[in-house]
Amino acid sequence: TVDGTALWNDILETARFGGTPKGGIRRLTLTEEDRLVRDWFIAACAALGCTVTYDSMGNQFARRPGTDDSLPPITMGSHLDTQPTGGKFDGIVGVLGGLAVLRALHATGHETRHPIELINWTNEEGARFAPAMLSSGVFAGVFTEQEALDKTDRTGIRFEDALVGIGYRGTEPCGQHPVAAYFELHIEQGPILEAENRTIGVVTGVQGMRWYEVTLTGRDSHAGSTPMTMRADALLAAARMIEAVNEVALAHGPDAVGTVGLIENRPNSRNVVPGEVFFTIDLRDPDDAVVERMEAAFRDRATAIAAECGMQMVLERVWDSPAVHFDPACIDAVRGAAGSFGYPARDIVSGAGHDAAYMARITPTTMIFVPCAGGLSHNEAESAESADVTAGANVLLRAVLEADAR
Amino acid sequence: TVDGTALWNDILETARFGGTPKGGIRRLTLTEEDRLVRDWFIAACAALGCTVTYDSMGNQFARRPGTDDSLPPITMGSHLDTQPTGGKFDGIVGVLGGLAVLRALHATGHETRHPIELINWTNEEGARFAPAMLSSGVFAGVFTEQEALDKTDRTGIRFEDALVGIGYRGTEPCGQHPVAAYFELHIEQGPILEAENRTIGVVTGVQGMRWYEVTLTGRDSHAGSTPMTMRADALLAAARMIEAVNEVALAHGPDAVGTVGLIENRPNSRNVVPGEVFFTIDLRDPDDAVVERMEAAFRDRATAIAAECGMQMVLERVWDSPAVHFDPACIDAVRGAAGSFGYPARDIVSGAGHDAAYMARITPTTMIFVPCAGGLSHNEAESAESADVTAGANVLLRAVLEADAR
Ligand SMILES: NC(=O)NCCC(=O)O
Ligand SMILES: NC(=O)NCCC(=O)O
Repeated sequence: TVDGTALWNDILETARFGGTPKGGIRRLTLTEEDRLVRDWFIAACAALGCTVTYDSMGNQFARRPGTDDSLPPITMGSHLDTQPTGGKFDGIVGVLGGLAVLRALHATGHETRHPIELINWTNEEGARFAPAMLSSGVFAGVFTEQEALDKTDRTGIRFEDALVGIGYRGTEPCGQHPVAAYFELHIEQGPILEAENRTIGVVTGVQGMRWYEVTLTGRDSHAGSTPMTMRADALLAAARMIEAVNEVALAHGPDAVGTVGLIENRPNSRNVVPGEVFFTIDLRDPDDAVVERMEAAFRDRATAIAAECGMQMVLERVWDSPAVHFDPACIDAVRGAAGSFGYPARDIVSGAGHDAAYMARITPTTMIFVPCAGGLSHNEAESAESADVTAGANVLLRAVLEADAR
Repeated sequence: TVDGTALWNDILETARFGGTPKGGIRRLTLTEEDRLVRDWFIAACAALGCTVTYDSMGNQFARRPGTDDSLPPITMGSHLDTQPTGGKFDGIVGVLGGLAVLRALHATGHETRHPIELINWTNEEGARFAPAMLSSGVFAGVFTEQEALDKTDRTGIRFEDALVGIGYRGTEPCGQHPVAAYFELHIEQGPILEAENRTIGVVTGVQGMRWYEVTLTGRDSHAGSTPMTMRADALLAAARMIEAVNEVALAHGPDAVGTVGLIENRPNSRNVVPGEVFFTIDLRDPDDAVVERMEAAFRDRATAIAAECGMQMVLERVWDSPAVHFDPACIDAVRGAAGSFGYPARDIVSGAGHDAAYMARITPTTMIFVPCAGGLSHNEAESAESADVTAGANVLLRAVLEADAR
């Protein structure tokens, strides 16, 4: 089993890189805070005898040799980047839980057949550079490296420039790294495990998700002297579309969700009727066909709203990550490991996207969930119990060893 | 009469300070661009033999002596600051039209009894520091100087620091400057004069206007794993309130207007259900009682929406500028001047706020409007005809001379 105290200490220690007054973390990818936690990651893994490298997308790999080093590594991983006002657990538990596994192997001198690698993926959140899971996506061949390097944040900074800026653009081409399997430990980020008093979620897959960008162009005009009937108010049109996203999600059943998370209003001045609005949409459902129907329903609604408000509309789908089904053998390994420890467990589908969703395209993959308080995530108050995190890392350890033995 | 060509050249020449690719101006108050146009103003007025001073709010005064210099000055003025994406005429026509009057007096050596002063008011737009007409407000005793100096822009910079930063914090205390009358030339910023083919608007007053700030606090959560029923989505609540502002304005008659011009969404990330939104509201009507009823109606709607969306709401009225009625003698002077030139004219109430609205509290005041294309303002495409601007400046000249003769 892993050292739960050391794992918890690692969580608290790394939380200072971008720590916020409210107890959360602001560690957007490829910022100075990200560089600091990456440096910490190298030191921590090196202290356990691992070799740490990084590839051309900045993904970090900490390698513990196997007895047969010609075999591809069994990998574990997640991400150390956060949302602008993120918590201390999202992604972090997976990386530091993997570190706890390496520490347990190191402490006992346990030899594995395969090398074991721990991966810290770049830009999982998609908060700075859309879409999410960008670098595991390149690794898995979903995106080309060039399109990823050319992504820009909302201030226009290129991914590549930011990556070079923090000194983490490696020479190993992203994707040319063999892997035998991939396991990812993560907080659930939803309410189910806690509500049912389960310690472990055996993750069978990830729901389908799509992202959209909408630009509405109306006409800037004076808020005082422009009659209501002569306006082309882009923010009013956006408000109607935000309501439409909500209605479309509610209309498509119990699991469907729809969110407008980001909005930019122009010129954003108190006495100017807004002439241009940019906003994003996130639609998800475990069933890709439902996502497809939601998109169609929203497109109809948006077209009608744009017409009634006198808007030019550009509505673009910028990301499509279909539903993922994880590897049955890996799922069994996790289920078995949870059972062997006697942890209460249940199968679960992930509502959030994860690097595992892309890794599943190229290698046997699954995930392990642990509960978080109130199902709250992407929030500075995100919280998890040390005992649950330890349990998750124990399951990770045993699942990895089982995969190694296969 | 004024030199219309010189006036038009001044408009084009000053448009380069903050000029935008789309032909508009971005010259937010107390920025480097504002400093440059203020320096230009001093040089231009000095070339006409005027003495230029500025007070503790940065208001600039260009003084042409009268034959009886113990008399308080007849004043003209407007502002040289713009919206973030403003036009070349809003405010500018009033300052440069006043300059054209000074030039005409200078060229003919015409002597006036009173000194004649041209004023460039600081922060009329209210785009950087709310509310609008801040410095004429201090001048007229509506706001204390200290509260004005302590205002902050949306990035937290204090008014006083910005004023000192561009070198325009004067030693003359704002408001201790005697005035005998105030005339302001401005583009209409609305559609009426153009639609009726009138060259001159004889402005009888300014409608009532109020500004509000709303902060909604819900709960940040994960866009993928938070069921629709467990959300406290601050942007969805804001969207409903934006719709409510629109409905309230439409329900309160032909003249009422209501606008949400500025919105800030937090954390503003694609995959986070927004936990906090800040937005502003602008409500106006020529009848203060209607504004009052709109406020009450919106408060009811907002309270209900906040409850249904699980929001904490802080709704604050941050500005109240009641309807203004200008001085009958000044209005007559403008009407008479327009008639003497044979310009087609009509009485009109201003939909926009102007420094004249505050000057009317302390001195006989009125305004002169000229048409602008399509009634469009607070837009980079704002446009006015040279002939109309010249006509407005001619009326300004004659009204000032009549006030001097009174
Ligand atoms: N785990 C996680 O929060 N990932 C971000 C990608 C998503 O939006 O689901
Ligand atoms: N003239 C003008 O646009 N002033 C800004 C103040 C207002 O919002 O009416």
